[in-house]
Amino acid sequence: MAEFKHLVLAKFKDDVVVEDILKGLEKLVSEIESVKSFVWGQDSESEEMLRQGFTHAFMMTFSSKEEFSAFVGHPNHVEFSATFSTAIEKALLLDFPAVTVKAPAAPADPK
Amino acid sequence: MAEFKHLVLAKFKDDVVVEDILKGLEKLVSEIESVKSFVWGQDSESEEMLRQGFTHAFMMTFSSKEEFSAFVGHPNHVEFSATFSTAIEKALLLDFPAVTVKAPAAPADPK
Repeated sequence: MAEFKHLVLAKFKDDVVVEDILKGLEKLVSEIESVKSFVWGQDSESEEMLRQGFTHAFMMTFSSKEEFSAFVGHPNHVEFSATFSTAIEKALLLDFPAVTVKAPAAPADPK
Repeated sequence: MAEFKHLVLAKFKDDVVVEDILKGLEKLVSEIESVKSFVWGQDSESEEMLRQGFTHAFMMTFSSKEEFSAFVGHPNHVEFSATFSTAIEKALLLDFPAVTVKAPAAPADPK
């Protein structure tokens, strides 16, 4: 079954402490087991014209679309989304089944 | 060292055959070793208002910012970018060092 990705790009309001948002996100993904992985980043290389004001990307991965749907409806997510909405100047969301064309090599065997 | 992500959101022109773009991308990432992984997807769940017309997301991962910079300057990438630019109605790019908050479980040991 295809993994499902939840991708959010955001530009935060000037007075927002992004670290607080990140703490909230870390708490959220630690509380909700269906979030399989969570990676984020702050743009450092793109040109302003190409990123169109967006500064941060957040990517969550789920085992399936059903797991993603359960996450969306989870009370902790609903609560966090309300906080997130007040912190952003703008955001952009894409939710899609992931197609892996090139996969990273498996991690080295720790043994 | 932090992995580096290259994220592209796109809306293609109406007459573009997206499969052709994908074939070009598959070829590109197979030719350039520094692309550690490549995952893409077509939005299926987000609302039009939230995705603002963007339909596709493309995510490449590199071992480092230096590997990403080498990719950007690679002649095959430069050539593909020209093709890509003519195919899109709009695109949005973010390039950032990846912060992994929650990592997927290691794949099962194949032995």
